[in-house]
Parts: sequence; structure tokens; C-alpha cells
Amino acid sequence: MTEQQHFERAMRHGLELAANGPVTGGNPQVGCVLLAPDGSIVAEGWHRGAGTPHAEVDALSKVADARGLTAVVTLEPCNHTGRTGPCSEALIAAGVSRVVFAVSDPGRASGGGAERLRQAGVEVIAGVLADEAEAFLEKWLTATRRGTPWVTVKWASTLDGRAAAADGSSQWITGTASRQRVHEQRAESDAIVVGTGTVLADDPTLTARGDAGELLAHQPLPVVIGERGIPATAKLRDRPFVEAATRDLGAVLRDLYSRDVRRVYVEGGPTLASAFIAADLVDEYAVYLAPKLLGGPRLAITDLGVASIDDARELVLVSVESLGDDILITARPKE
Amino acid sequence: MTEQQHFERAMRHGLELAANGPVTGGNPQVGCVLLAPDGSIVAEGWHRGAGTPHAEVDALSKVADARGLTAVVTLEPCNHTGRTGPCSEALIAAGVSRVVFAVSDPGRASGGGAERLRQAGVEVIAGVLADEAEAFLEKWLTATRRGTPWVTVKWASTLDGRAAAADGSSQWITGTASRQRVHEQRAESDAIVVGTGTVLADDPTLTARGDAGELLAHQPLPVVIGERGIPATAKLRDRPFVEAATRDLGAVLRDLYSRDVRRVYVEGGPTLASAFIAADLVDEYAVYLAPKLLGGPRLAITDLGVASIDDARELVLVSVESLGDDILITARPKE
Ligand SMILES: NC(=O)c1ccc[n+]([C@@H]2O[C@H](COP(=O)([O-])OP(=O)(O)OC[C@H]3O[C@@H](n4cnc5c(N)ncnc54)[C@H](OP(=O)(O)O)[C@@H]3O)[C@@H](O)[C@H]2O)c1
Ligand SMILES: NC(=O)c1ccc[n+]([C@@H]2O[C@H](COP(=O)([O-])OP(=O)(O)OC[C@H]3O[C@@H](n4cnc5c(N)ncnc54)[C@H](OP(=O)(O)O)[C@@H]3O)[C@@H](O)[C@H]2O)c1
Repeated sequence: MTEQQHFERAMRHGLELAANGPVTGGNPQVGCVLLAPDGSIVAEGWHRGAGTPHAEVDALSKVADARGLTAVVTLEPCNHTGRTGPCSEALIAAGVSRVVFAVSDPGRASGGGAERLRQAGVEVIAGVLADEAEAFLEKWLTATRRGTPWVTVKWASTLDGRAAAADGSSQWITGTASRQRVHEQRAESDAIVVGTGTVLADDPTLTARGDAGELLAHQPLPVVIGERGIPATAKLRDRPFVEAATRDLGAVLRDLYSRDVRRVYVEGGPTLASAFIAADLVDEYAVYLAPKLLGGPRLAITDLGVASIDDARELVLVSVESLGDDILITARPKE
Repeated sequence: MTEQQHFERAMRHGLELAANGPVTGGNPQVGCVLLAPDGSIVAEGWHRGAGTPHAEVDALSKVADARGLTAVVTLEPCNHTGRTGPCSEALIAAGVSRVVFAVSDPGRASGGGAERLRQAGVEVIAGVLADEAEAFLEKWLTATRRGTPWVTVKWASTLDGRAAAADGSSQWITGTASRQRVHEQRAESDAIVVGTGTVLADDPTLTARGDAGELLAHQPLPVVIGERGIPATAKLRDRPFVEAATRDLGAVLRDLYSRDVRRVYVEGGPTLASAFIAADLVDEYAVYLAPKLLGGPRLAITDLGVASIDDARELVLVSVESLGDDILITARPKE
């Protein structure tokens, strides 16, 4: 095996380790592998979420002496003192002779680790398996580069685009497999966003639950957007929540980012979902289609300000899955 | 091989032969295989459409002497003098000793062939590969048993259920692969049905065309339903067409059946498609979904008279296909 092949194998393993960490939260999923000069794996580590050691420090903690080792890390080591010290300094102090990483750290505060390492005489190789790591961390990287969370807009509708029957009844449009998937998607989000209209109409708890109704380990932060107040008796008041008494969606997203929210799951209703789309704030669509027809006035998407067919919002399908009797279409804006 | 296995093999081949005939028209696709007493195939035939010999007569025409042979036919031999004589009599006259068929002929005029054969001393075995043959001939059998054509309702919409943008523009919602498939589906239909609204708005030719714009070999009969008149200059007047100046969809279907129409392709617009659905007259849905969002007032399906979620029209998905960037969902009413 060439040295490059050793690095790639270690990086692939680092990505697997990274996936052990939590998908949610302000910090990325990162994995680290320490290699001996002959390319064999000496130790491994990964990040378990904000406030816990970073992947590099986790790996270093497993060896008595790191001098002369190569650290293969999925993300550029941070250069920032937060709840933990900078990884660049930890690697220098441990005597690591080389650092290989896949993707640069776009964080305004945390970036610059590669530069610091080079200054200290550590060899730095960047870009190994960059595409895989970029795809793996896409949502976190997009959010961090932009300073606003990754936005998934979800809706459930019939094949003819209705979210409820004429009388407003909508339980249940989709089947249990779809509803369970929605709860999983909630649990993979930092925040779950609805408009005041949904709170006033449905009084939802906005929790992520398992199929026996039990709360899942990670609960997203409920966020209600709109100028009307949330009733004093609203069920979502049982947990911490954000009341964003505005219609400025960009401002809400920037505020959520500052609260360490990186993944937002917009669950509606139709007015708010349409406002997100019209404002070009959507990164991904999760459209649950039930094999039913309803007709009538209750649309899943209301108005998008599109006048002519040439101005249609064009999407690219990412996947089409069968979920029980339903179809889940995952799509993204074109370009 | 047992005798039963010989029959099944011959029947399977008969179904393949049947598929050579035209899918459209008042007559079914039928195949026939003549077997020697040892089970070997002596001759084969199939029906090429109204006015041409039936499959049995086609097969018999290929042998000098059919005495003692077994005729394996996908559909019960007819007992009716139409444009050609009854097949039951032809088989008896030829001296065939046994007739094996898959599905009984539900035609009011043509049925009774098995009974006539038995009376004449010919052994008759019914029901061989009945399920396969039933599936193969499903649309024709359904139409013939019911006395009204098989109805496919097609629409093309965005993922949010819109058939046009706010200004009415809709060219093109779907891509070329979808539009080509629509033309194929038209060519497999006896009639293509629209409401007066579509004729007045779009002045369509309602022809089945290939991808270079050329007319396909089979052209469906254009049918316009609605009380308003068809303009004297309408393009569809270039060919024979039916002007059904009524809103009684059941009456239109019965009339079309009497004109040998067995497969109807309802292409809209939204008002007429919704009326077919609301009246429970749909056998199959062909829903072309484009990965676009439009919002706004131009819905693919308007109102279905559904008040509450429990009254939703429930469908069963038959297939979900990817067609270029679009998705074609084929579905049927549940039960
Ligand atoms: N099928 C589904 O997937 C699904 C999911 C959720 C809800 N629903 C249904 O949706 C219905 C509620 O619909 P809805 O449309 O009234 O509720 P909504 O979209 O949850 O709330 C609409 C409200 O959002 C606020 N808002 C905040 N930012 C806005 C912006 N930029 N533009 C416009 N509005 C903004 C406005 O409230 P203010 O007036 O207070 O400013 C607006 O009235 C309920 O019946 C619920 O059952 C269905
Ligand atoms: N995206 C697509 O797949 C697609 C396909 C076709 C058309 N379109 C668009 O659809 C638009 C036309 O829509 P539309 O809804 O006005 O046209 P439509 O459905 O073709 O025609 C509606 C008319 O059908 C007649 N009709 C016959 N039986 C009826 C019944 N049982 N109930 C109700 N109406 C009955 C009525 O005409 P009378 O008043 O004369 O009785 C009614 O006004 C056009 O803009 C066209 O571009 C889209």
C-alpha cells in the first residue's frame, strides 16, 4: 500500500467513527485515527457532542506517547478555545509529526488549525477523501459556511396536493411508516419549526416520539414563528421553546444559528412552508405523498408568488422511497 | 410432461401470440395453438383486429387436417356470427377433438362457445392459466363485463398538485420522456376524452404523435364532453371526433362502448377529471409528477365532494416509475 492509500483507508475509517457521534447540535461529527509510521492504526477517537473532547483529543487520550504518529482527521483540527482547548495545540503538544485531514473547518472562530500546525513544524496534508467527507458533513458545513441552519421543509399530502379535507380533518393522511419516519427526522433536527397557525389549530406537542409514543433520546427545540401569541395553555410550553414573534424568516434563522441550531425541520403549516419556499430558504424537501385524493380547498402549499410556468421552482429529486403505502420524495432546489 | 403441463405451456405461448394483435378496438387480443395428440405444436394463430379472422380460424388455416387435434385458446371460442363466423362452429367443422381455454368470453353476443362445443361432442377444458389470461385481458374483460370502457384518468402536475401557473401557462410542466409516454398511452387507447374547457382554452389536436411529431399508426377517437359547442375552427375537427354535448359521464361511456371503444384515456382538464373521480368512474390513474413547485390557484384536481378525511378516495399504487426528471405514478381505486 502506498502512503496515500494508508491515508485514504484511515480517513474512511475516520468517517465511520465520526458517524458514532450525534448528528445534531452545533458541533460537527468528526473522527480521528492515529497511524504509526508503518501505516498501522494505533488509536481512534470521535467527537461525542458539545462539551466533550474533540475527536483528536479523544484519540490522543488512548496512547501514552503520540510522538512521530500521523493523525488522520475527517475535519481540519480546530484552532479555538471553546468549552475545550484548541486541537491544533493538543496535537502539537503531543508531538504528532503529521496531520492529514479531509475538509477545511469553515467555522469563523474554529478555522486556521492547519496554519497553526504548519507554523509549529507539523506536516499537514489536506483534502484526502474530501468529497466523501464533504457529503458526510454537508448539512453542518452548509450551515456553518452560511451562518444559518440547514432547512428541511416537510409536508404530507395526498397525490393531488391536499394537506387536509374540506372540514380541516387530516388525521391521518399518511400511514404509520411515514409518521414514524417524520419522528426520526425530527430527532435528527436541532429545531422543529411551525407557524402560529398550526399551534392555534392543532396544539401540537412537537416532540420526537417512538412507535410506542415514548419520547426519543434527542428532542428538537420547538420554534413557533408568527406575530400572534402562543396560548398560555399550549402543550409545547411543557418544554423549552422559542417564540419568534415575527414574520422575518431570515432573522429567525440567524437567531437559531446563534443558539447552536444547525438543522431546522419546517413542519408547516401550508402558509409557513410556502413562505420558506417563496423566500428561497429551503435546502431540502421531504414530501410525503399518500395514495389518496381529497380535492377541495386545503392545500399543502398555498402561494409561492410564481406567475408563469418559466418561474416554477425547479427541484432535483434525491430519492423516491416507498414507506408503507406512501411515497417519500426527497428533493432539493435545482443548482 | 403431463397433459396439464402441455396445456399450460401451449397457453403461455398462446398469450405471447395474442400480444401480437392490437391492444385497441372492440375485439380482444386472442392467441391459439393447435396441439398434436403427443402435445407437440402443430400450428399457431392470433387475432389481428376487427374484421380479420379470429385466432382459432387463423390457426386452423395453417393445417390441412385438424381432426384429432387439441385447440388451446386464450379466450373461450366465440359463438357468434359477426363480421366473421362463430369459432365454435369452425372448430367443430374442422374435427378438433378437444378445446382448452383460459377465460370465459363475457360478451353477451359472443359467449356460449364452450356449451356449443360440448353439445357437438368436443371435449372442453376451461380455466387453464386463467389468472394470467385474466390479467392480460383485464381492461377488455372489465369493459366487456360492465358494458362501459376501461377508464384511465391522466394528469400532469407539479409536486404540489398544480397543473399550470397562475397565468395559465403550463408548457411544459413535464419533460419530454413523460410527454412521449402520454402519446404512447394515447395510442393504446380507443378514445381520448377532454372537456369543452380544454378545447376552448388550448385548441388541442388530440393526436398520438411520435417524438419527431409524426402521427402514430393508431389514432384514438377524440371525444369532447360538455354542453358548450366546439368552435368551427377547432383543430380536432380535422379528424373524426365525438361531440358529447352533455355532462352525463355515464351516458357518454355507454355511448362510446356502443362505438367499440373499450379503453378511454381522460386527459382533462381539471374539471372533467375531477368529475370522473367524483362519479367513481375511474379504473386507473396515470399521474405524472414533475419535480417543480408552482403554488397558486391552478389545481390539477379541483373538487371531489369529499368533506372529511375518512371520505378520501383511497388508491393503491400499481407502480412508481422514473421518467426523465419526472415520476409516473400508476394507481387504482382501492378494492
Ligand atoms: N399535512 C401537514 O403536513 C401539516 C403540517 C402542519 C400543519 N398542518 C395544518 O395546517 C393548518 C394550519 O395552517 P396555517 O397555514 O394557518 O398555519 P402555519 O403555516 O403554521 O401558520 C401560518 C402563520 O405563520 C405565521 N408566519 C410567520 N412567518 C410568516 C411569513 N413569512 N409569511 C406568512 N406567514 C408567516 C403567520 O402568523 P401570524 O399571523 O401570527 O404572524 C401565519 O398566519 C392546520 O390545520 C394544520 O393541521 C398540516
Ligand atoms: N396538466 C394537464 O394534464 C392538463 C390537461 C388538460 C387540460 N389542462 C388545462 O386545463 C384547463 C381547462 O380546464 P377546465 O377544467 O376548464 O377544462 P375541462 O375539464 O376540459 O372542461 C370543463 C368542462 O367540462 C364539461 N363537463 C362535462 N361533463 C362534466 C361534468 N360531469 N362535470 C363538470 N363539467 C363537465 C363542462 O363543460 P360545459 O360547461 O360546456 O358543459 C365543464 O365546464 C386548460 O387551461 C388546460 O390547459 C391541463
